Order: sequence, then structure tokens, then C-alpha cells
Amino acid sequence: MHPTTITEVQVTPVAFRDPPLLNTVGVHQPYALRAIIRIRTDGGLTGVGETYADTAHLTRMEAAAEALIGLDAFALNTIRSVIDDRISRLSVTGGDGVAGMITTASTTDRVFSPFEVACLDIQGKALGRPVSDLLGGAVRDRVPFSAYLFYKWAGHPGAAGTHPVASLAPEDEWGAALDPQGLVGQARRMIDEYGFTAIKLKGGVFPPDEEIAAIKALRAEFPDVPLRLDPNAAWSVDTSIRVASELDGIVQYLEDPTPGLDGMAEVSGEAKMPLATNMCVVAFEHLKPAVVKKSVSVVLSDHHYWGGLQRSRLLGGICDAFGLGLSMHSNSHLGVSLAAMVHLAAATPNLTYACDTHWPWKSEDVVVPGALRFVEGAVPVPTGPGLGVEIDEDALATLHQQYLDCGIRDRDDTGYMKSVDPTFENTSPRW
Amino acid sequence: MHPTTITEVQVTPVAFRDPPLLNTVGVHQPYALRAIIRIRTDGGLTGVGETYADTAHLTRMEAAAEALIGLDAFALNTIRSVIDDRISRLSVTGGDGVAGMITTASTTDRVFSPFEVACLDIQGKALGRPVSDLLGGAVRDRVPFSAYLFYKWAGHPGAAGTHPVASLAPEDEWGAALDPQGLVGQARRMIDEYGFTAIKLKGGVFPPDEEIAAIKALRAEFPDVPLRLDPNAAWSVDTSIRVASELDGIVQYLEDPTPGLDGMAEVSGEAKMPLATNMCVVAFEHLKPAVVKKSVSVVLSDHHYWGGLQRSRLLGGICDAFGLGLSMHSNSHLGVSLAAMVHLAAATPNLTYACDTHWPWKSEDVVVPGALRFVEGAVPVPTGPGLGVEIDEDALATLHQQYLDCGIRDRDDTGYMKSVDPTFENTSPRW
Repeated sequence: MHPTTITEVQVTPVAFRDPPLLNTVGVHQPYALRAIIRIRTDGGLTGVGETYADTAHLTRMEAAAEALIGLDAFALNTIRSVIDDRISRLSVTGGDGVAGMITTASTTDRVFSPFEVACLDIQGKALGRPVSDLLGGAVRDRVPFSAYLFYKWAGHPGAAGTHPVASLAPEDEWGAALDPQGLVGQARRMIDEYGFTAIKLKGGVFPPDEEIAAIKALRAEFPDVPLRLDPNAAWSVDTSIRVASELDGIVQYLEDPTPGLDGMAEVSGEAKMPLATNMCVVAFEHLKPAVVKKSVSVVLSDHHYWGGLQRSRLLGGICDAFGLGLSMHSNSHLGVSLAAMVHLAAATPNLTYACDTHWPWKSEDVVVPGALRFVEGAVPVPTGPGLGVEIDEDALATLHQQYLDCGIRDRDDTGYMKSVDPTFENTSPRW
Repeated sequence: MHPTTITEVQVTPVAFRDPPLLNTVGVHQPYALRAIIRIRTDGGLTGVGETYADTAHLTRMEAAAEALIGLDAFALNTIRSVIDDRISRLSVTGGDGVAGMITTASTTDRVFSPFEVACLDIQGKALGRPVSDLLGGAVRDRVPFSAYLFYKWAGHPGAAGTHPVASLAPEDEWGAALDPQGLVGQARRMIDEYGFTAIKLKGGVFPPDEEIAAIKALRAEFPDVPLRLDPNAAWSVDTSIRVASELDGIVQYLEDPTPGLDGMAEVSGEAKMPLATNMCVVAFEHLKPAVVKKSVSVVLSDHHYWGGLQRSRLLGGICDAFGLGLSMHSNSHLGVSLAAMVHLAAATPNLTYACDTHWPWKSEDVVVPGALRFVEGAVPVPTGPGLGVEIDEDALATLHQQYLDCGIRDRDDTGYMKSVDPTFENTSPRW
């Protein structure tokens, strides 16, 4: 046995309160689900990772966890191969963790990711070096993030079927944002609190002209802040081209205006700004057709489905080699994921855009506070061994109990929206 | 200061005896040049790397070496950036180290490579783990290599101008190989000694029909051994297509039949076997046009000009993502490079071809013997800390003195050939 031989793997699903953030497939449920992975080694080291917690994903994670016992935390190639083999023998389906918005990512990479992060945490601890040092070393000591604006209801509806929700729901600490003025206020507060120097708006919620107006209102209020709009493929090619024309010179990039590599290529040919994606290029096999078709100019990485930090570095290297820009996508996440995102971003020279994060929307966590903080819109890169975050056992137990109690077992933005508005349909493109 | 802070960098050029191996640009000189890089850290660790030793390259290496003092051996992103900046301020040109056969590789990656390998050696030693563990872990415990056949003269001409050389030169231990029978004998001996299970022939030396006959003779003698032919872009597109047709079903892949991405694409469209390259895709910027033009099916990696082991892994990942095969190229090299090649190949899952090596042609080295050996055509992957090879100080001093004495300062296969045969012209395509 080696000090880094894996002796125990724990997968702990947790739930944390999440506001009613709107998107084109529906609305965030009252709780967001995550799973915390802990790997322990023969030498007493512990590594931690974080991922989705949909039922099918948890089933795969549990199977993978069993298969890792006895392997070495440095044997990442082997670990990925063992996981690939193990989960290929399962018959579960679904469980993407992102409400159906990213369906074609690699299941193997999605399952491998948190184990890889936990193994890198172990490697860093064994070596007494931060994870960024295992990725080629930090090239920046702080990682800028963007203010991630959402249209949102005032609060979660008190009971399913209550409608119209926005007016009847009890107000949460952020309140409603359902028009340009609401978003400007949300942005102002978020920038005041965190110092963000870029803004992303989750669109695809209201008809395009309303979202164009919102972007223009943000531009008027924040004349020097880069802006991005992400309607999650809510628009047809024609609508996308029209919106792109309206927002020419106003947005830094336009994210997934329309579905598919071919549609994106059509829009790319007309739009003056770069098109970005975390929907039509979400696995390595999508890169070749995207390059050949010229579908996008910027790829949003996300280590949770790109197979961990080393494979996200590979994605970064591919973008560099093929002349694609690189940014970073986020889902609702906790501190373990933020730490991993920060180490990765710090060690990726061509990650020059401010990264996405849902961090401001979260009021609970599983990590001991203090390791991660925002200073002028950026997170200083942890310099201690491994990821640099520590699990708060009490907090983990609390959020696990919340998972057990909350009744949610799969992220289902569409179902939740339908429970409130039975006329809602999840269609793409919507306009 | 950290135990892995770089305190000293030494660049030591060496020369080792090399037989008169023929290729399309000329013939190997009596000595092959290499440079051994040693990096020492504040904590007393030493890392070793190996690279070319052409004059301009040495100038760049010396400048890079100075710039590294005080940096950390884990800060590879920063080290590459510092080197890029430092050498961009030099006015030297040339110095590719490979006789003009690979001219469009990245100068930065070529200079960075041996330093990166030496830093990984240090990292591995600091961690007590083999370099393969820093690359995702070995997926194989032995790395297969191919028998690398060359047309060759019996020995080096005694004096410049002696002609015809082949008949007058003193015979070396391998003797002449100037026809199919000579190559078959060379292959037989090499396979008997090393157990190789694949054969590569360096072609482009004689008219294509003679080399086709050689390949067919090898096939007759070794019916089950994969064969490859590499004429280093000696043929026109039409000649390449004709040779490809003749060798259909006989060679595993055809390597660089013709110059350039466009020519290779034309041949690719007609040839039934995969086309491989280490000439038209030798830097990351070549990958996109190669993919778009469909120029090649297999890329030969070579960490000496692809920017070290981590960037060679990136190349491997790109090949995997874009559906390209991956093999490994070699120049005349010593044990430090072989160790690096073995660790890289061991940790690269999709490197499924037997790698190239000039190893059998070499009778001198700078490493303490025993760490690397061939068993049934493959090198067992060292499992000790770092690269697993140690410099033999006496041997290094001897080969450095040989460098000082030999008078060769730049690899010049063409000039050496011209000194023997003044009518020789370096043309591509030749036929």
C-alpha cells in the first residue's frame, strides 16, 4: 500500500436553499442539489470534490466510488478508465444535473470529474502544494468572476399552483427582477457587494425585445463593464441574428442564442460579436465539428462535465491551439467547486474572460468559511496544500439532512415551473 | 525560498558518435549533438533534461537558463512565459537541431521543453513519484518501440571528398545497408537484439521503386510486423499516390510522403492507408488547418519540439478529441530523452503505435547504465522518483569534451553529404 492508495470513498448528497431564478427551461427549485465526494487514503489524506446530485448521477457515483478502492490517487488515467468501465455496466439514464440544458456531455467525464478533483486535492496535500501547481502553476493570483444576473420572482411560491407567482410569493432577500429596472438594481447590489467587473444576464425568459432593453439599460448604468447575454438557445436563427444586430457593440459575447452547431454557425456568420457556448460544445467530440462548421468563437469550460481539472486544461489548450476563446460556465455550486474553479482558472493562461459563478445566490455552504472570498470581483487563489478548503462537518450534516428532508431528488426547473404555471412549455427555440 | 526554487541551471553540450545514416536531406555526421540541462533547487534537488545543441539553440538555452533562476520548478506556465519573453529578445536564427527537416516548430516550445522535463524530474523527486504520475499516471508498464531502419554507408568516409563513399569507407559495426537485402539484414539483427515488434524505414534516399522493393522485402521476411515508411517529403503528390497504391495493405501508415498540408491532403484523399506526419504538423497552430484540410490521420508527437511532456499530453488529447492517431517521433538521442519519452508514452492512453527511437544506433551515453533497457522491443517504465535516470558525471565530461573536440557546432546532414558528394542537392520533393 502507498500513502495515496484509496481506502474509502464517500458520496454525500446535500441540498441548499436556492432562490427562484428564471431561465428558459423554467425556474430554480427551492433547493439546489449537490454531492460532496470525499476520498480517504491509506496515509490518512482526504481529498474533496463536488458534483451534481440527481438520482441517476448518484447511482453512477456510488458505483464509481466502490470501484476506486485500492487504486492510487495519482493514477488518474486508470481511475477514469475504471469509472468508464464501471458505469457502462449500469442501466440508469438521465441525471445530467442541469435541468436538461446540457444533455450531450460525456457521462464518464461527468462522473470522473469530482473524483479527479478530490485526487488532485490529495496530491496537493501529499506534496504540500496548491492544486494550481499540479496544473502548471498559477499565472494569476486572483481569478475575476462576473456578476451573474437572473430574472427572478420575488420569492418562491408558497404552494404549488399559486399563480401569478411573482406577485403572491413571499419576498426573499433579493426580491423580484422582472424588468430592466429590476435587473439594474440587482446588478448594482451585486457589484456593490462583490466588486464584479463583468456582468452576465441569464436570458431566454422574456421575449427578445425585453431582454435587449435590459442589456441596454445595463449598458447605460454600467458603461464600462463587459456585458454578456445567455438565452440558452431560446431563439431561432433569424431572431438570433436580429438580436445580435441590436446588441452589436454592446455585448462582449452572445452565449448560445440558438440550438445546435449548425444554427450557431448560421448566426456566427452574421453576428459581429463572438458567439460563446456551453450547450453545443460540451464534450471533446463536439470540438471538431464546431471548428469545421465555425459554430462558435468562445467555449465555456466547466470542469464538472469536461472531466475534471486536467481535462479542462486540455480543453483550454485546444481552444488556444484552434483560435477559440475560453471562458468558464457555472451552475449553482458550493465552496468545493469554487475552489476547484479558482485553481483551474488561475493555471489556465488563456482563460482571459471573467468566469461565471452562482456564488452570490447561495446562503449556505459545506466548507469552513474564510478560505474563499471576493475582493474587487475576484477570488484570491488559495496557496495552501490541495484545494485549500476544508469541510465543515456540522454544515455538511445539516445540508445532507436538508437533502433528505427537502423531497427533491432531481433538478427539474421545468416541472417546478409547470407546478406554478401549468401552461408553461419547455421549447427551444422559443422565439 | 522554497525547496523547489531554482538556484542553478547548467546547459552542457555533448557529442556522441553517430553512424552515417542516410536520409533525403543528406547523411548523419560522425557525431550527433545534444545538450544536457541540469536544474538545481534550493532544496538540493536536481532535475535533468535533454535537447538539441545547434549553436543558435544553445544561445537561446543559455539565455533561458539565466532567466529561470529564482523561479519555482512547479511554475511551468510562468517558466514558459519567461522563456518566451527572454528568447524573443534574441536576434539569433535557425538552430532547429534536425537538419532543416522540421523548421516550423515553435522556438519557444523547443527551448522550453528540456527545462520542463527537468522541472518534472524535480517535481517527481520532491514527491517521491515517477514523472508518469505527474502526467496522469502510467496506463502501461512497458512502452513498445519500433526498429528504426536506415539506409547507411558501411562507415563514415575517412576524409571529406572521398567518393564513392560506400565502397571506400571503413566498415562500422553495422556495415552497409544500401538495398533491400541490406535492410532486411539490419532489421533481423535489430529485432534479434531488441525484440522490436514494429519496423520503420527512413526512406527518401533512393528512387521510390527501390524503397517499395525494400518494404516488400521486409514484408516477406517479417510477415506479421507492422511496417512504416518515411521519405521525409521526398515525393511529389503523384509519386506519393503511386507509392501509396503500391504499398496498400503493406504499411501500417505512410509518413510524410510529400511536403505541406495541401499536398498531404491531396495524397490523403487517394491513399488507402493512414498518412502520418512529423513535418507538416509540428506546432499547435498547424492542427486546425490540418483538421480542416484533412491532411493527415496520424500525428507523430515529439516532446523536444512540442514543448515538453505536458504539452505533448495536450497534443495527445487533441488527437484523441479530433479523431487523429498518435505516434511518437525520434531524433538521435541519449538516455535522458528516452526516459522522458517512456514516461510520456506510458501516461498517454491513445499512444497506441510503437514509438520511434534511434537508440540502437547509439554506443555512448550520459546516464548511468541500467535504468533503461529493452525487453521484447519495449522499455519497462521506470518507477522510481522523477525520470528515474541519473547522470554519469564521467560520461558527461567525456561526451562534453568530445563536443569541444569534434568541431561540429550545427547538425548539417546536407553539408556533410555535399562534402562527400558535391553534386548532391537538397530538394523536396526529389521524385
